[in-house]
Amino acid sequence: MASGLLATTATAQNVTDSQQVAHITNEVLLHGTAYQNLEYLCKKIGHRLSGTGAEARTRTWAIQAFKEAGADTVWLQPVMVPKWTRGKESLKIRKGKELITIPMLSLGNSEGTKGKNMEAEIVCFETMEALKNAPEAMLKGKIAFLNYPFPAHFPCTFDGYSEVGGNRYNGPAIASRKGAVAFVIRSLSTGVGTYDLPHTGVMSYGDAPYKIPAIAIGNAAADSICKWVKQNAVRAVLNSSCGMQEDVLSYNIVAELKGTSGHYITVGGHYDSWDVGEGAHDDGAGCVQSIEVIRCFKQLNIKPKNTIRAVLFANEENGAKGGRAYADSALSKQEVHVLAVESDAGGFSPRGFSLEMSASEVQIVKSWKEVLLPLGLYDFAREGGGVDIDPLRKKLKTPLAGLMPDTQRYFDVHHCEKDVFEAVNKRELHLGAASMAAFIYLADKYFN
Amino acid sequence: MASGLLATTATAQNVTDSQQVAHITNEVLLHGTAYQNLEYLCKKIGHRLSGTGAEARTRTWAIQAFKEAGADTVWLQPVMVPKWTRGKESLKIRKGKELITIPMLSLGNSEGTKGKNMEAEIVCFETMEALKNAPEAMLKGKIAFLNYPFPAHFPCTFDGYSEVGGNRYNGPAIASRKGAVAFVIRSLSTGVGTYDLPHTGVMSYGDAPYKIPAIAIGNAAADSICKWVKQNAVRAVLNSSCGMQEDVLSYNIVAELKGTSGHYITVGGHYDSWDVGEGAHDDGAGCVQSIEVIRCFKQLNIKPKNTIRAVLFANEENGAKGGRAYADSALSKQEVHVLAVESDAGGFSPRGFSLEMSASEVQIVKSWKEVLLPLGLYDFAREGGGVDIDPLRKKLKTPLAGLMPDTQRYFDVHHCEKDVFEAVNKRELHLGAASMAAFIYLADKYFN
Repeated sequence: MASGLLATTATAQNVTDSQQVAHITNEVLLHGTAYQNLEYLCKKIGHRLSGTGAEARTRTWAIQAFKEAGADTVWLQPVMVPKWTRGKESLKIRKGKELITIPMLSLGNSEGTKGKNMEAEIVCFETMEALKNAPEAMLKGKIAFLNYPFPAHFPCTFDGYSEVGGNRYNGPAIASRKGAVAFVIRSLSTGVGTYDLPHTGVMSYGDAPYKIPAIAIGNAAADSICKWVKQNAVRAVLNSSCGMQEDVLSYNIVAELKGTSGHYITVGGHYDSWDVGEGAHDDGAGCVQSIEVIRCFKQLNIKPKNTIRAVLFANEENGAKGGRAYADSALSKQEVHVLAVESDAGGFSPRGFSLEMSASEVQIVKSWKEVLLPLGLYDFAREGGGVDIDPLRKKLKTPLAGLMPDTQRYFDVHHCEKDVFEAVNKRELHLGAASMAAFIYLADKYFN
Repeated sequence: MASGLLATTATAQNVTDSQQVAHITNEVLLHGTAYQNLEYLCKKIGHRLSGTGAEARTRTWAIQAFKEAGADTVWLQPVMVPKWTRGKESLKIRKGKELITIPMLSLGNSEGTKGKNMEAEIVCFETMEALKNAPEAMLKGKIAFLNYPFPAHFPCTFDGYSEVGGNRYNGPAIASRKGAVAFVIRSLSTGVGTYDLPHTGVMSYGDAPYKIPAIAIGNAAADSICKWVKQNAVRAVLNSSCGMQEDVLSYNIVAELKGTSGHYITVGGHYDSWDVGEGAHDDGAGCVQSIEVIRCFKQLNIKPKNTIRAVLFANEENGAKGGRAYADSALSKQEVHVLAVESDAGGFSPRGFSLEMSASEVQIVKSWKEVLLPLGLYDFAREGGGVDIDPLRKKLKTPLAGLMPDTQRYFDVHHCEKDVFEAVNKRELHLGAASMAAFIYLADKYFN
């Protein structure tokens, strides 16, 4: 434990990069508060959809948490965000004289049936291509059901998600254009066995003629319904009351550890979540890890050259307005942003960072490989930053990095009621926080 | 999903190594049966300490599972193993007039109090050094309590375990030599918060004069007792009936996929477990992954040059007799063993292989780095093979490799009642199995 004690007294001036990364690792693994912060966020506040009271309570908590972490300043950056409400909802399948209740979740930003029963026949499609190629007559007045399973063969589950994410986002509009009265999707879920939880997520009507209800069902329910449809015509009764409300005022939560250069490095996650589970991995983890970066720097007396801004972004899930407002503000204030790092891929054991930056900047990051390897960080080959920091790239050409944790379990819990505090492992969460702190320590030193 | 279909028809002859590894990955991630095998092993058989009926039932199941996987032959290799039984046990702390029950587990192979109450004062040591340096007068007739916490600052938890594993193994003998009447250890556990589960594990009396009872308690209980001891003299009442029985006959379970060279590659795990939890990660995972290697090779019609031997070893936990018997047999039959691979570090997301082989053999493995990287395998820097295959190295100089999964969660569940099927993630388990199959595919091709 001696090295842990050492970590609290060492400073950046008299140590090698590898030593400083070891100090950061010790500090976070031995004394990190990310896990206890996450417990508070999940258990005392819970899920926190944009525009809700829970979202507001998160700000009160976060301001306090940042102050306890040692931030020099904490402030709120206003941003108007869409407000979507779920309300009551149910899906029932007529099976002979029975009505079988199917666990379901309306997709985020979708409209419902205005609380009235909508009954129609289900048409099952095994692929998006089949849905796109279906004649209108096949769908007119029907419920389009897309039963495409999560592609499980990719070692990185985000590769699977990339392949099917568009199905959820665009599927409702495609079904609507063909005259379907509702859209049902097999959840984008790696859940196995008798797993039957629906996973929600954002959708868009685009220029579709009608805003038809769009819902997700679990893997087991999808298998059952598909089987039933092959045997007989199957009718479903959908009743939902979700819908968009007026935009409301929200805020990004911004904390700073002041540097001397007048330039900025941003580290963040988003504090809004879907309205199921507790938003633990998505993205409570990224929030508490960002707070931990501040705490760790402060504890180790690391004096950054650039101001480290930890940002808990508003409204990533159903609008991405927080990230845009942050970049707009940076642009209008002519801020210089050296780097932005986001953690929004779950609080799992870290494996690397995705990078969205120039080739020469990538080379700088790759020169840290040996220094970062003890944290289990080896993968810098993926592209991308994160939804909330992408606007910084677009508007200010800021180099971006995204924490890349192990992906195997993410889509078991993503956007569903399983995304709770208990699904997060303390060591994994803290190792991710240490990885972010180490990455930012190096970027502060070598980027400019 | 097309690549999954492709995988079932491709053969080793007409594909590159990267393609074959992709086929293996697809096959295991899409069609692997390791997870369902593990469910059976954990839920229908449960934990399976050496010499128990459950251990015998595991053999019946495994023979069938190997046949279903497509093994050419399955046979049992006899080996005498120690038999240890736990029986009833309890630890109570006198606190004023109260007797507080503390969750506890006797350490494996330790003797008990023969079912009688043993009452003595507890002496608390914060480090092994303090225990070693304590005068006999301090321990005479007392219960020695070693309260050293699991070193949490290592990113790889096995580094922490290496530091403290000897405390559990040797602590009882050290305490005995100083006249202590019992030894209590804070569990080698990364469990956090109010976590209070004891973790068992093997110990040895060495040449200690008395076989004093040796037990483990959970982290929270350890904190409490240590606090109480600082306030007042604390007496504990221990009652346990564990002890060693006569050695009994057991068997290694050996399945083969025949090659043409007359030489062997071994892949294995151990099927015995401690008598708490279900032995899911330790080492049901290694067993079902080894079966999966056979199934995968058979399904993909991979014809190995060397005979692939999947071995489920007996008695790793409290004797390591299975591994020794296997190597003894190999030696006496003058078998040539090209490589042995063990999975005994949990069914978590794979990160690499530890290696115990010559420098030139290490270079061969490192030449596969790019081919193995898509599976998330990057770490080949650690030394070691596995307890069950180590005798092959000692006796036949066989090159060894050990699957190295992510280590963050292992010591949350290791040797305690949390090591159950539900603690294993299907994708993580299967990615580990695919990693073993890929590694063995390459070794079969490039080792000789």
